[in-house]
Amino acid sequence: MPKHRFKIDKQPKQEIKFFFHQPGTIPGTLRICQNATPSVINLIDYNRQEAYQLNNLTPQECVTHLDTESVSWLDVHGLGSEDVLKSLGEIFELHPLVLEDIVNVPQRPKVEDYEDQLLIITQMVIPKPKEVGFWLEQVSFVLGKHYLLTVQEEESLDCFQMIRDRILANKGSLRDRNADYLAYTLWNAIIEGYFPVLEMYGEQLENLEEEVVVDASNYSLSRIHQLKRELLALRRAIWPQRDAINTLIRDESLLISADVRLYLRDCYDRIVQIIDIVETYRELASSLTDVYLSSVSNRMNEVMKVLTIISTIFIPLTFIAGVYGMNFENMPELKVSWAYFAVWGIMIAIGLSLSYYFWRKGWFTTS
Amino acid sequence: MPKHRFKIDKQPKQEIKFFFHQPGTIPGTLRICQNATPSVINLIDYNRQEAYQLNNLTPQECVTHLDTESVSWLDVHGLGSEDVLKSLGEIFELHPLVLEDIVNVPQRPKVEDYEDQLLIITQMVIPKPKEVGFWLEQVSFVLGKHYLLTVQEEESLDCFQMIRDRILANKGSLRDRNADYLAYTLWNAIIEGYFPVLEMYGEQLENLEEEVVVDASNYSLSRIHQLKRELLALRRAIWPQRDAINTLIRDESLLISADVRLYLRDCYDRIVQIIDIVETYRELASSLTDVYLSSVSNRMNEVMKVLTIISTIFIPLTFIAGVYGMNFENMPELKVSWAYFAVWGIMIAIGLSLSYYFWRKGWFTTS
Amino acid sequence: MPKHRFKIDKQPKQEIKFFFHQPGTIPGTLRICQNATPSVINLIDYNRQEAYQLNNLTPQECVTHLDTESVSWLDVHGLGSEDVLKSLGEIFELHPLVLEDIVNVPQRPKVEDYEDQLLIITQMVIPKPKEVGFWLEQVSFVLGKHYLLTVQEEESLDCFQMIRDRILANKGSLRDRNADYLAYTLWNAIIEGYFPVLEMYGEQLENLEEEVVVDASNYSLSRIHQLKRELLALRRAIWPQRDAINTLIRDESLLISADVRLYLRDCYDRIVQIIDIVETYRELASSLTDVYLSSVSNRMNEVMKVLTIISTIFIPLTFIAGVYGMNFENMPELKVSWAYFAVWGIMIAIGLSLSYYFWRKGWFTTS
Amino acid sequence: MPKHRFKIDKQPKQEIKFFFHQPGTIPGTLRICQNATPSVINLIDYNRQEAYQLNNLTPQECVTHLDTESVSWLDVHGLGSEDVLKSLGEIFELHPLVLEDIVNVPQRPKVEDYEDQLLIITQMVIPKPKEVGFWLEQVSFVLGKHYLLTVQEEESLDCFQMIRDRILANKGSLRDRNADYLAYTLWNAIIEGYFPVLEMYGEQLENLEEEVVVDASNYSLSRIHQLKRELLALRRAIWPQRDAINTLIRDESLLISADVRLYLRDCYDRIVQIIDIVETYRELASSLTDVYLSSVSNRMNEVMKVLTIISTIFIPLTFIAGVYGMNFENMPELKVSWAYFAVWGIMIAIGLSLSYYFWRKGWFTTS
Amino acid sequence: MPKHRFKIDKQPKQEIKFFFHQPGTIPGTLRICQNATPSVINLIDYNRQEAYQLNNLTPQECVTHLDTESVSWLDVHGLGSEDVLKSLGEIFELHPLVLEDIVNVPQRPKVEDYEDQLLIITQMVIPKPKEVGFWLEQVSFVLGKHYLLTVQEEESLDCFQMIRDRILANKGSLRDRNADYLAYTLWNAIIEGYFPVLEMYGEQLENLEEEVVVDASNYSLSRIHQLKRELLALRRAIWPQRDAINTLIRDESLLISADVRLYLRDCYDRIVQIIDIVETYRELASSLTDVYLSSVSNRMNEVMKVLTIISTIFIPLTFIAGVYGMNFENMPELKVSWAYFAVWGIMIAIGLSLSYYFWRKGWFTTS
Repeated sequence: MPKHRFKIDKQPKQEIKFFFHQPGTIPGTLRICQNATPSVINLIDYNRQEAYQLNNLTPQECVTHLDTESVSWLDVHGLGSEDVLKSLGEIFELHPLVLEDIVNVPQRPKVEDYEDQLLIITQMVIPKPKEVGFWLEQVSFVLGKHYLLTVQEEESLDCFQMIRDRILANKGSLRDRNADYLAYTLWNAIIEGYFPVLEMYGEQLENLEEEVVVDASNYSLSRIHQLKRELLALRRAIWPQRDAINTLIRDESLLISADVRLYLRDCYDRIVQIIDIVETYRELASSLTDVYLSSVSNRMNEVMKVLTIISTIFIPLTFIAGVYGMNFENMPELKVSWAYFAVWGIMIAIGLSLSYYFWRKGWFTTS
Repeated sequence: MPKHRFKIDKQPKQEIKFFFHQPGTIPGTLRICQNATPSVINLIDYNRQEAYQLNNLTPQECVTHLDTESVSWLDVHGLGSEDVLKSLGEIFELHPLVLEDIVNVPQRPKVEDYEDQLLIITQMVIPKPKEVGFWLEQVSFVLGKHYLLTVQEEESLDCFQMIRDRILANKGSLRDRNADYLAYTLWNAIIEGYFPVLEMYGEQLENLEEEVVVDASNYSLSRIHQLKRELLALRRAIWPQRDAINTLIRDESLLISADVRLYLRDCYDRIVQIIDIVETYRELASSLTDVYLSSVSNRMNEVMKVLTIISTIFIPLTFIAGVYGMNFENMPELKVSWAYFAVWGIMIAIGLSLSYYFWRKGWFTTS
Repeated sequence: MPKHRFKIDKQPKQEIKFFFHQPGTIPGTLRICQNATPSVINLIDYNRQEAYQLNNLTPQECVTHLDTESVSWLDVHGLGSEDVLKSLGEIFELHPLVLEDIVNVPQRPKVEDYEDQLLIITQMVIPKPKEVGFWLEQVSFVLGKHYLLTVQEEESLDCFQMIRDRILANKGSLRDRNADYLAYTLWNAIIEGYFPVLEMYGEQLENLEEEVVVDASNYSLSRIHQLKRELLALRRAIWPQRDAINTLIRDESLLISADVRLYLRDCYDRIVQIIDIVETYRELASSLTDVYLSSVSNRMNEVMKVLTIISTIFIPLTFIAGVYGMNFENMPELKVSWAYFAVWGIMIAIGLSLSYYFWRKGWFTTS
Repeated sequence: MPKHRFKIDKQPKQEIKFFFHQPGTIPGTLRICQNATPSVINLIDYNRQEAYQLNNLTPQECVTHLDTESVSWLDVHGLGSEDVLKSLGEIFELHPLVLEDIVNVPQRPKVEDYEDQLLIITQMVIPKPKEVGFWLEQVSFVLGKHYLLTVQEEESLDCFQMIRDRILANKGSLRDRNADYLAYTLWNAIIEGYFPVLEMYGEQLENLEEEVVVDASNYSLSRIHQLKRELLALRRAIWPQRDAINTLIRDESLLISADVRLYLRDCYDRIVQIIDIVETYRELASSLTDVYLSSVSNRMNEVMKVLTIISTIFIPLTFIAGVYGMNFENMPELKVSWAYFAVWGIMIAIGLSLSYYFWRKGWFTTS
Repeated sequence: MPKHRFKIDKQPKQEIKFFFHQPGTIPGTLRICQNATPSVINLIDYNRQEAYQLNNLTPQECVTHLDTESVSWLDVHGLGSEDVLKSLGEIFELHPLVLEDIVNVPQRPKVEDYEDQLLIITQMVIPKPKEVGFWLEQVSFVLGKHYLLTVQEEESLDCFQMIRDRILANKGSLRDRNADYLAYTLWNAIIEGYFPVLEMYGEQLENLEEEVVVDASNYSLSRIHQLKRELLALRRAIWPQRDAINTLIRDESLLISADVRLYLRDCYDRIVQIIDIVETYRELASSLTDVYLSSVSNRMNEVMKVLTIISTIFIPLTFIAGVYGMNFENMPELKVSWAYFAVWGIMIAIGLSLSYYFWRKGWFTTS
């Protein structure tokens, strides 16, 4: 248990991240991070009959695949190559604001409708492999009639591999459907990715519940605080996705077929469930704070009781001993031969009756 | 009382349960639990004239009963047999998402309209027989023109037996009406089932109120916390059912007759009342937390008073005794023959006046 | 004051009451309480010219009066006679759900429109005569074209006597108007009945405010808690009546004339005011909790100060006395003839300077 | 500062006032307070060319002025004369509910549209002249085509004098416009009157902020509580006026010209700002409560530290002294000639090292 | 760190500022502050071909530039010259309320549509250069067909310089577009200016988080309180801008082209993000308060433990020493030659076993 605790204390805090330009910058300016991964373009092109995957394409090589009737999924990782991203913007005829939202991460999740294109900004959550915590990563979708462009920061951290395999191996109905169903499938995978993280925090909450009652240390509350912080980060990521998906369901974009809208409704239900759980966890964490504070008070109570019992029993006895330690010449008791034993008797009697008094008050039982 | 308390402390916590696939799974995949009960299909078929019950049917045996004009209630228990559930899906022509919602429990309660079918997901609450607590179990309804399919996890835990008896014995107006009224009756029974649980928690809240003032132990607050946790679980179960029933009343589905809609309005009122009570209980539990914390503080106050009274009275007296225990050669008082008694007099006077001072301050009365 | 306090502590708590059937009961089942008052039917029949009152009618005797053009007010007390209530249901052709809502009290206040009848469920609040507290009682209205049926639990507890007198003595404009104005008048009297109860709690809140600062006892907070509990009960009773009256104003039922709708708007304003006051009281009670907790802390502070002052002054002095009580053979000070007096001087100096230090810190003034 | 504090403690509390009839009273009954000021009617009649003021009119004398095309402002103070108020009601043909709302103060602010009349109920706030606090007073407006009737409780407390002067001296554009602009001007003056009161509470909040950190007394929190109480009273007064003015802007009453509606929009913005500030102050007051409670805890901490330092240093020393005060015959140390000095040395060493320990722990610095 | 802390404590508090007239003032009255900066008018006039800047114009000199088809940006700093502002009002034919809103700062941010003009009131936030804190300054926009009038208080504090340079140097697409795009660009710069301030408070929050756990001083909570105060001020500034921009997007004013509305939508997303972050910070600050309070309690616990350990060990020992310091003539133990050493043994045994007891209880480890 201490080892586990240590990891949490040391783990970097989930920061409240946001992107901003220097005020006054030209709208549409891209900001490429120094240490961003260079952009890599992979393509999966499929129809009912066949599917193939091409890796490490240049933007120009993509153009031919986009014209066909088959569905083309352009899968871009890494935001480090400004020229690659810009020429992608030109090929797909992206509005400058769209390209900005894709590159300048993190943005707030949203759906925007540009006539023949849909921009979907989502937040993917990736649990950290060996500790409690998660990474948040923006995944942007640009959905057209027969293509889907997805852009994310890192290749290592995606949850799309199973879907790539499903396309190539023709499992499920993906190959029979259009790009909108692919977009749904990917988004659904992102949403499903929140549940393992929630499960992790549910467990942590239960550990904390136990710890707080049994053995509340000084760090317990700061860990509850950190848990709240991370739940807030989760909420910030998932809440706007609810609005986004709702917009998709309600606004009758031509790019989303009625059938896929049914699936999106299912996806919406999942998001509502996630929000529900996050809020429930937050309320439990708040209530836990009270339990913690009372636990601290109770412990103080116990400390005080020990002090009070010992002091209250021995201070009067010490006083009696002090009295017969006085050096007055005329103290008749001192000469009585059984006086010493009598005093012992009195002192023991006082001690016992005070102990009995405290026992009756229930102070000996640790509450 | 301690026995009762013990049971609560030991009882397993109401977990915040939710279902999720591994991210990237094909939508519509069924996940059959290892230890799930095998699926059993019972059928009650009735019209105004007659009613009969058939148990342990195979899915294929059901088909003939569904075609008739009489109302067929297919009552499925257990989610353990994938093939049975799948062939049910085929017989009723269920959308893959519908079958998934029925099998992959627990889902969020909701109503979904599939043209000639209505999917209703509800949460049944079953009080535990000999302790404070409850089980939550999903009951799914698929309502068609002349049939109703209900699916639940366990046979042992349902509250539908009275309704089965009413149909077979032709009590009430069930036999005169269609499948929509049967669905209402069952759902209503589920909703009514929340009240005994609420009553149980109302009693527990009152017990806690008394305990917290009279005898607040270290576990009182953790029990309040657990109560909050369970109220949150109840709220999570009942709140979406309110939205679901509201959807049914508002959206004019052809499968629900105007007459039954009137009954659903009554059912809606009950749900609102349940939500009301849950919220009231939660506010009372929050307020109780403050009472508890103040109770702890007051007890500490009392401990401190005992310590302070004893210390304040005896420390000065011990000091006086100490003074006349000094061994200076020239201490004139020591030679005075009545000095010892005078010192006793002074000490008693100091003790009494300090006691009087504390009595005046009201410290002897336990506040 | 202690007497007053005692009464509150002993008074039975305002319970969060609700009605429920055993799950699975046939909808429309009436549940007659064992100890319910037998049902008594009184009738007041009036038009512009004349008014008469008949008491203790049987349901059958009412029928003739209902057919006339004059307004008939059927005033039923007591829910103890199932047959009387059932035959009333037949005479007025009440929907089974309506009769259930009337008999199975308490229900949530609401308005329901049944074409030629309006069902209005209200909650009447009756202040307890000699103590702080109130009873809640359901009053149900069934409003028809020329009649009004009102049903309540007890005869002793109604606030309608003045209105009966007004009808019979032809005061105000009641005799010139139809049954809808009578329904408004009665409902308005019920609403007005909340204000004296609010006033009572306003006074109690002010008493508590004073008590908490001046003399916060252990029971103060549990009394604040009880006050919150009762305000919650009031809120639960009044809040749905706001929705109910709003429904009446908005939905243009033919049974309510435009003129009476104007009066209902006034009634609505009163309800909003009541809700306002209840919420204000609840916020004050919450803030009072903080005042109480700080009051307890401050008192503890004072206790600690007394202990600290006494200990800090006498512990060093006792140490000095102890030093010169040691029995070393070679202690030069002991032989100095003025040493004893010097030690006294030093001890007094230490005592005074420590006292001055605490006086400077302001510890002698009770904050 | 103490003088200032004293005034606040003594000042009468801002009560949560409300008006109510005895339940069952005839709607429209006026309740005249015993000690209410007798009603005085003043009139200002103006058009673009001329303006005159007449004081102390009888209701009958007003009639002639109302018929003219010029704007007549009937300015009534005092609610003590039932006959005057009733004949005003007859002259203006007021609905009984309107007259009741005007006379039975305080009512909730609102706007009601009676075809050719608008009833506006507002709450004026008057800062108390030499202390922190305010009076709330209802001002009722009845706006007709060419007249405005305003009714308030006291003459001494209005903020309309500047407007009277502006009309008579023809400053601003008041004389060029109709009665609706006059109503706006008066209401605007009432709204502007909230700002000085808010400023007063802003200052008090800042004083409290300082006091709570530097010198938190037992009364600080009860003053924060009182501040909250008064902010709640302000909120109760201003919040419904927002709804009222919004109704006026939205509902296209013929009595309000489009031009004046523009000014009302400005007035609405001010009310929103007032609500904003009140809410901000309430949140600051809540946060201040925490600061206060922590301040009390910190002070207790300091008291405990003093006690602990003194006790921890001297209790072991006193023990050592006690040991060598024992009277055993065989205590070799007592005979060693330098033993006494050695014991002093040991005691000083212990004292210094404990002091150093506490100094290292930072207990000597008042945190 | 202490230096940093010092600055915060000394820095002037972010006041809750608001503007108000003396109640009864004529609507449209301008209030010129004594020490306001004199008004300076700069003009930038541009079209696709050319752009020029003129500084220190008189209002009359502006007129000629406004008539042209090119976009004229009138950039006014300083609210100190009443005549300049009034003649601007005449030139632009501003409604008196518009001029009042521009001059009497601060007003609540809003958008108002005056047919051929749009009034936009915004709040700019300027971080203080060398300390934690910010200034809020109102920037008012009056947008016409081909002109934009912006008014602000101080020249030194604007974030528009980059935009002026972009126009003159023809960077970005500003020169190709109309005045509405200019208004968007400026407002966007104002909104972007909130992010650096948020980043500053994010850092401060993290510092506080660390400080509160490691070394919570008496001032920590008052600093959290101040942080809350400043976040409230930020919220008050940004929240109404959200409503304002939403009004612009929704209401189809002719002065805003569809293209610019797309950009405004992006701007709206940023505001929502800012509000999100502010609320997250406020929740974290609230949670931090609990951490602080528990930190104080824990420290008190530690102090108490030290006191209790020392007292509990030495008080019984002192009692034993006191017993053998009594002067009874018949105390057999005193004569036993090894008694003294035995007593030492007993005392050491008691001391060790009590120490072991406390060590087992975990009191020696600082929790």
